[in-house]
Order: sequence, then structure tokens, then C-alpha cells
Amino acid sequence: MCRWLAYSGNPIQLETVLFRAQHSLIDQSLRSRLGHTTTNGDGFGIGWYGRHSEVPFRYRCLHPAWNDTNLREAARAIRAPLFVAHIRAATDTPAQETNCHPFRYGRWLFAHNGLIREYPTVRRDLMMAVAPDLFRWIEGSTDSEVMFFLALTFGLERAPCAALEQMAGLIEDVGHRHGIEHPLNMTVCATDGEQIAAVRYSSETDSRSLFHSTSFRHLHELYPENSHITEAGDTACLVLSEPLVDLPEAWAEIEEGTAVLARGGVIEQHRFIPRVPA
Amino acid sequence: MCRWLAYSGNPIQLETVLFRAQHSLIDQSLRSRLGHTTTNGDGFGIGWYGRHSEVPFRYRCLHPAWNDTNLREAARAIRAPLFVAHIRAATDTPAQETNCHPFRYGRWLFAHNGLIREYPTVRRDLMMAVAPDLFRWIEGSTDSEVMFFLALTFGLERAPCAALEQMAGLIEDVGHRHGIEHPLNMTVCATDGEQIAAVRYSSETDSRSLFHSTSFRHLHELYPENSHITEAGDTACLVLSEPLVDLPEAWAEIEEGTAVLARGGVIEQHRFIPRVPA
Amino acid sequence: MCRWLAYSGNPIQLETVLFRAQHSLIDQSLRSRLGHTTTNGDGFGIGWYGRHSEVPFRYRCLHPAWNDTNLREAARAIRAPLFVAHIRAATDTPAQETNCHPFRYGRWLFAHNGLIREYPTVRRDLMMAVAPDLFRWIEGSTDSEVMFFLALTFGLERAPCAALEQMAGLIEDVGHRHGIEHPLNMTVCATDGEQIAAVRYSSETDSRSLFHSTSFRHLHELYPENSHITEAGDTACLVLSEPLVDLPEAWAEIEEGTAVLARGGVIEQHRFIPRVPA
Amino acid sequence: MCRWLAYSGNPIQLETVLFRAQHSLIDQSLRSRLGHTTTNGDGFGIGWYGRHSEVPFRYRCLHPAWNDTNLREAARAIRAPLFVAHIRAATDTPAQETNCHPFRYGRWLFAHNGLIREYPTVRRDLMMAVAPDLFRWIEGSTDSEVMFFLALTFGLERAPCAALEQMAGLIEDVGHRHGIEHPLNMTVCATDGEQIAAVRYSSETDSRSLFHSTSFRHLHELYPENSHITEAGDTACLVLSEPLVDLPEAWAEIEEGTAVLARGGVIEQHRFIPRVPA
Repeated sequence: MCRWLAYSGNPIQLETVLFRAQHSLIDQSLRSRLGHTTTNGDGFGIGWYGRHSEVPFRYRCLHPAWNDTNLREAARAIRAPLFVAHIRAATDTPAQETNCHPFRYGRWLFAHNGLIREYPTVRRDLMMAVAPDLFRWIEGSTDSEVMFFLALTFGLERAPCAALEQMAGLIEDVGHRHGIEHPLNMTVCATDGEQIAAVRYSSETDSRSLFHSTSFRHLHELYPENSHITEAGDTACLVLSEPLVDLPEAWAEIEEGTAVLARGGVIEQHRFIPRVPA
Repeated sequence: MCRWLAYSGNPIQLETVLFRAQHSLIDQSLRSRLGHTTTNGDGFGIGWYGRHSEVPFRYRCLHPAWNDTNLREAARAIRAPLFVAHIRAATDTPAQETNCHPFRYGRWLFAHNGLIREYPTVRRDLMMAVAPDLFRWIEGSTDSEVMFFLALTFGLERAPCAALEQMAGLIEDVGHRHGIEHPLNMTVCATDGEQIAAVRYSSETDSRSLFHSTSFRHLHELYPENSHITEAGDTACLVLSEPLVDLPEAWAEIEEGTAVLARGGVIEQHRFIPRVPA
Repeated sequence: MCRWLAYSGNPIQLETVLFRAQHSLIDQSLRSRLGHTTTNGDGFGIGWYGRHSEVPFRYRCLHPAWNDTNLREAARAIRAPLFVAHIRAATDTPAQETNCHPFRYGRWLFAHNGLIREYPTVRRDLMMAVAPDLFRWIEGSTDSEVMFFLALTFGLERAPCAALEQMAGLIEDVGHRHGIEHPLNMTVCATDGEQIAAVRYSSETDSRSLFHSTSFRHLHELYPENSHITEAGDTACLVLSEPLVDLPEAWAEIEEGTAVLARGGVIEQHRFIPRVPA
Repeated sequence: MCRWLAYSGNPIQLETVLFRAQHSLIDQSLRSRLGHTTTNGDGFGIGWYGRHSEVPFRYRCLHPAWNDTNLREAARAIRAPLFVAHIRAATDTPAQETNCHPFRYGRWLFAHNGLIREYPTVRRDLMMAVAPDLFRWIEGSTDSEVMFFLALTFGLERAPCAALEQMAGLIEDVGHRHGIEHPLNMTVCATDGEQIAAVRYSSETDSRSLFHSTSFRHLHELYPENSHITEAGDTACLVLSEPLVDLPEAWAEIEEGTAVLARGGVIEQHRFIPRVPA
């Protein structure tokens, strides 16, 4: 059920992680190893940051990532210091560009792996909980996009982890009201081009996989000849659904119920506890 | 801003009106003569009825109608006693399959030409006015689809013209509350496979064009050698945005503020007066 | 590397074999069990026959079969006495509508599972072997489509199995001239709406899987309550890449180097021996 | 029948000419003023150069340019010192990505407006005239792409104008052999990232429109406050199907039977005379 990754560090070609890695994101679109589904062929999207004050750019498409020529071109053309990429396995909503992640609002990008259970039942309540001035920006029909706009409603732009906790709290509260035992399963990523906030959480405490990279400085010492590691720089950081290479010392699993904030190569982790908004 | 047609009568090949007519719907996609826009290349859709109790079928696609090979094949393959076809010129929402008309619910199909002005502003209020049990069936992001679900909320399945009047009344009421002078411009078509309800109405009394065919029995007498007229049968009927052929005696313009109900070849017309729902 | 099926018998809804079977073709697009690849998400196509003298109809699309809404609609809408369906896993050519099977010429449809090895190298020679008056009808860039036009060049319309033997002979001959040891791997299906010719052959004697149904009369006696079997009728026949249901007595594997001709429920098999055309 | 433009100069955002100009290329896709067709909605493509030694990048899509969100994003994201953009109105070949311009081989990009008359008739002979080692790179089914590979066959990479003259000579020769009076109508553009070669020629001496920009240094003196002119720099150059703004002194029409070579802001023009290759 989807795979995503977020990178921060020196500008690198997106191709490095999208195509060239041992288990690149494109490989994961055809044969994911840790995902809920093997195939993630219901669309993809990339979002990346350029000049400091610009709104991030996106390329989203409903085609499978593995057969999209334009994605290969884009991955070769784009160098960026921070980007998010997502490949989709749709739950119940159609494959269409507006249902591809990352979603965007202002300088923020958002991606999600997981689901809101029985979403058709709770959809109306959740959409109505989105702030009226944000409602108009909802383009598609996914639970994921509504999660983003709920997080924005609860102050994502000011305090991302707290906003995500309220988003999760609301979703679980609404779900419970509708008799749904385990309303929410998620790993999410939200970024504004400077920090990456990520969460691994599910109501049933059995969330989709999520990892972060270990210290690139340390990896560079271990593998000084590896040009990709060198190129990314010592403060580089990846947060991602599953490892890109079989290098155990390069990845640390993010535990259940954890929020992660990555900034300038420093990764903070703390407990993630959903809170029902007032 | 879109063109549509609805046909009822003996089963005919869709190709007859979609491609073979002098000013066929496909011609109108590239060069409409009476439409708000010349080009209607933001997608298309066809909906048709088969066996009596079946839910109607659809083929919708975001490609321009003029270059879609599958549409030509479908038009050649399908014979139907009642069908709706629509070509889209998008206002502000993306070209995607779920934004193509006709929309469907149960045995009902719905198409629209026109717009709800400043739709992003009123969208939330209008969506909230859709009955909760219907809300989950909204797939896309168009004003047109929400109009359909509002009409269903107000009893389209039981009394289509009254339901459409309440839909229009609500849209105007909400629009006025938001300071929008002329909220609604429309020609719409709603059918359940047995009757075709159509309306030409706009807040500013300057609606998109709408016509209906005159008596096929009479046309057959005028043009006994015309195989299309013969094939359609004496009780055939077309309701459509613009004429398919330059044959003035074949078409009657539907006036502003008029609702039309076509059933078994009989066309009733009466005043259309929006009513704000209780 | 692709999966296909061909059905002949009483008219049935395509949905029966495309979606409703235990291991339907759509299931095979996401998780094929016997195919060279698990995922066949690079497009699909259906071709079906209607009235006796009509050219067959097609619906082809580059989207994965599992997420295409229009395919579900078509499968529900279409009843046909003979049809071919194909799901694609692309080798080296792009996912585009003109590269989807079945290919069509006159009343003939053609589908292929397998490949011509090192096709870029032999492509020019093979295309130049297509009869000049047929060359103009080549729309796409696949080896499969060129195989079809070679078979047509060698008289497919008159003697399908002999034509396919010459096609295979030519491909192997050209391949060998270019130093390719095993030029061809195929199961193919060619039909004109009345007979289905199919072949299982590869240069390396390790062809993709191919099966045919056993006697529907016998199956009906075994499973008199099975409405699908009853509906298809006693002379029904399926030729297909892999079984649709786990019912061993329903399927017989077609052996290596075998040509099959199915007509009116009678299946003839004989040795398939490539012959280099004069 | 298509519109294209090529820019060379200081790196600028593609958006400047694709979207922001008074009669931008996107405007031309919906309502071209000088094109053979008003609507050019059968796909589009952009090709651009980055770092000096890199193969140029492309984004091609079969959607109409006016409704493609990804094109807007790309135009905002990409700054390039040399790029080509094309919008397509298809003649007889399908709308598909591989039929969109610009075509690419090595560092060369190629775009075309016009047609080869009765192309299905001459297609085989023209494809056979492409050098065998180049044949494999033909991806689509357009006359335009084959023109490119013929030009490459005749030495485009070494002497572009001479190669284009031989290409034109061959096409006319083959056309005449098939009894076609006026085989070729074209404006074409070929570039390797350093020079832009363009030609305006047709057998019937009634070619599609083609212009080039006048001196940017002079335009800057005329309009010192115009930031776009300033940004492009004094040696900037545009070669294009129709003017982007109504500024007569900014554009010079390229006459019939003319080849243009633009390099470093210097534009050479000379007679274009097709020559049948030896």
C-alpha cells in the first residue's frame, strides 16, 4: 500500500535514489519487499525544492512508475537538496493525477502510506473538519489528501508534530464514533523544504514500515569510495518506507508510535500520541 | 463550455450522432459553433442503457474526443435505445476521468453545460448540503457532479424537475450569501433510461444553448429516404446543446427558464423556477 | 511477459472471464502465477466480434488492467460469441495504446505472449519482410505487431497455421543471420471470428504457458449447477495462457511445438514446424 | 498543424515563453492565429539542455498542452540556455507520447510543423532509406520522426543544413515516384544545444509560418524596462512558428525556401535547395 521516501542534504540527482539504488523506489513499484502490496502501480509523484523561497515543484502521474519515460528524464534532470517521492497502490480511490502524492499547500509537501479504514463512511465528517478556507484546495478523493488538510487545519505549518497528533486523534475519534475499531494506519511525511516531519503510527499498532538513514558522516568513513554517500554530504538524511540498499548499518527502523523531525542532518525522535482536538 | 446530447428512440449506433452527423458531437469537440468555447477538448463521456433492468454503462476519458480511438470503436459497437454523450471544456477543475460527464447514480445519468460561479468559494457549503448517505459517491471535483448529488438529495429519482428546481434554488441561495450576483448557468440532462429531464436556466437569463428535435414522424414524412430518421423511429427524441445537422425544421430551441420532460417521444415543457429547499 | 485468452461459444459477458473467474485475467495482471512476470501492468486490450460481417471491435489502453474503470464497464456491457483479451508486460517498447494487443487487420485479431530476442537488431529486416501493401498498417513499435503483419504477409487469412509457421521460420532465419541463438519465444492467437488458431513454440523449446479448455459438454455433466458452464454452451472453447479456475479436469496444457485450430468447439492439434519462406 | 519554438540565450525559465507571453505557446495550443489549425491539442513536448556535456532532457505528453498541470510545473522549474517546445495537431497518426516532438538522438533535438503528403504510401520507402544502425531508434509512427532520422542518415550531426537539404530531396524524389505532386511541407528545427538550424520550405512554396527574433540588444535599447528582454541577454535568439507578442519590430519572417543557422546570437540565412542524395 504505497512506498515513499524523503531526502535532505546536498543537492543530488533524483535518479540516484529513484533508479540507481539497489532497491530503488522504481524497483519497489514493481516488487516491493516490505510493502503491504508487492506492486505499487497506481501512480507516482515527486516533489522537490529549488531556490529558497520558491514553492516546491511537482511531477505527478497516474501511470506505473516503472514504465513512465518522463519520470526517468525528470530524475536525470533534477538536482535538489530536498525532495519527496511516492509510488502508489490505491486502496479504493481511482488512479488519477490528483490522487497521487505528494500533496502540496504553500511550501509544504505531504505523502502517506497506509489508510483510513472504511473511508467512505467517515469521509464526510473528516472533510467537514477541514478549515473552510482550506477546503477549496482539496483536489482529489483520497484519505491521504484529507489527512494533509486536517494537519494543516491543526497548525502543521507552525508545529508539525503536534498538528499530526491532532489529525490522528480526530481520525480515530471520528472512526470510533462510526464503530470502526482501528481507524488509522500510517506512515506520513510532511516537509516545508527545511525540515522533514515523519510519523509511524497505527491504531492497531501494526504500521507500515518506516526507516531513516544513519549518520552519513559515519557511512562516509565506512565507505569512503562510495560517491553517492560523499555527494550527499555529512548532514544528509533519508526517511523512507524501506531501505534502498542492503546495508544494515545504513538504516534504522523507526518504531511504532514515533514522530521524527529531521533538520540539518539532525534527527529527533519522540513518542507520537494522537490527541483529539478541542 | 461543454456540449452534450441525449437520445431516446429505437436502438441506434452511437456513431450515427457522435461521428456521422453533419455537425456531430465530435466535430463540436474541435469546433463548436454555438458553445461558449470553440474547443471542448478536456475529456468526454458516454453513458448508455442496455437491458431493461441494468445499471447504465459508461465510457469516460480525459482525452479530447476527436483523437480517442476507443471512442470511435465504442460508437461503432454500441447500439442503444437511450444514451447521453458529453464533451468537456473544463472551467477550473482538472481534466480527469472522474470529472467527465455523465455522472451516474443507480440508473440515473447526469450531464451539465455551464458553471457555478466562484465555485471554490461555495463548494464546501454545497457539498455539505448533499445528503450524508450520498456524499460518499462523489468521485471528482466538479461543480457539475455536486449539482447531480444535490438533485438526488432533493428527490431526483422521484420527481426530477422539482428536484432540479430545488438544486438550482439552493445553489443560488448559497451563492447570494457569498455575494455572488449570478451564481448558476446551466443546461442539464438527467435520465433514468426511460425519461429524459432537461433544463435550460441561468441566474443571468443568458444560458448555454439547448435544443430538442421536432417530431420524427413528421421528419420521416419530409425525408422518407433518410435512413437515420427511419431507423430512429417515430417516437425518437434528441435533446442537445446544438443541432447535429443544418435542418431548421428538425430542431426547436428550448427557451430560457424551461424544463423539458421527454418520455416515449412525447415532450412536455414547463416553466423552470428555482425554489430554495426548506 | 503478458497473458492472453480467447473465447468462442455462446455469447457471454466478457466480465465472466475477465473479472469473475477465480484467477481471472485481471487477477493475472496483478499476480500472474504461471507468467514470466508476476505483474502485467503495461496495458491491456480486448477485441470482440458482434454481427457476422462486421470488423471486430477493440478497446485498448495503456493503463494497468486492474485499475481501469472503463474496462470493468466494457466487460459488463459486452456480450460476444468470440473475443480475445490480453494484458501486457512490456519488454523494451513503451506502454502506449498502439502497442497493446490484440492487433487487428480486416476481421483478424492477433495476440502474443513472448518475445523476439534482440528485437532492435532484427527489427529492420523483419519490417522489410512485411508485404509493402501491408506495411502502412503497422501502428506501433512491438515485435508482436510485426509478427502479425508477417503472418498476414504469408497468408494468414487463407491458411493460418501455415502462415504462422512461415512467420516463425523467417524470424528464426533472420535471427540466426544476426548471430542470435534462440530468436523466438511465443504463444500466439489469431482469429477471424470463426476459428481460433493458436501456437505454442519457442526456439529454445521453453515456451510461455498455454492451455485449452476441455469439453464443455463434459464439464457441464460434471458441474450441472455451474451457470457459467451452462451459459457458454456445449461447443464453447477457451484457449489461454493460464487456467482461470483451479479445476484440473477443465484444462489441458498445449505442448511445445504445437499448433491448435479451434472451430465450432472442435479442437485440432498438430505439430508446429517453422518453415523459412521461399 | 503544430507550432514550435526554439530559444537560445541566457538561461531563462521556460514559463516565460510557454505561458507568460502575450501569445504564448500554450495560448497557441488552444487558439493559434497563424497555424494551419487553430487547435493544437494532440500532445506537446519540451526538450532542454543543462550542463554542457549532457544529453538534453525531454518531457513529452499526449495531453493537450493547455490542460497539463505537469507542464506548468516543468515550465516553472526549468531554467535553460537552450530549449525547444512543440505543440501538436496530428495529421493521421495517433496522439501518443512517442509521436510528440521534439525527437531526440544523442545531443540532437528535432521538431517539425507540416507534413509529408500521402505518408502511408511513401512511409516504407522513407523508412528503408534510414541508415540501418539508426533504424532501431525510431520509436513512433510520424512522418516527422522519420524526417529526423533521414536527416541524421545524411549527416545532420556534421552539416545540418546540407543534411536537411538531402532529406527534403529524398522525400520529394520518393513522393514524385509515387505520383505525389507536392510531397513535402515543413518548417523544421534541429539543434545540438549550441546551434539551431531551422528551415522553411515546401514543395508547393506555401509553407507554414516561421519567424526569428530580431536583435535582442536592439530590443533592449527599445524596451529597457522589459525584464524578459534584459534577462535573455544581448545574444538571445528565438526561432518560432508565430510571434509570442504583438511587437512587430521584434520579429522577422523567414522566407520560403530559407535555411537559418543561429549560433551565439548570430543568425545566418541562405537559400534552401533540396538535393536528391546520391
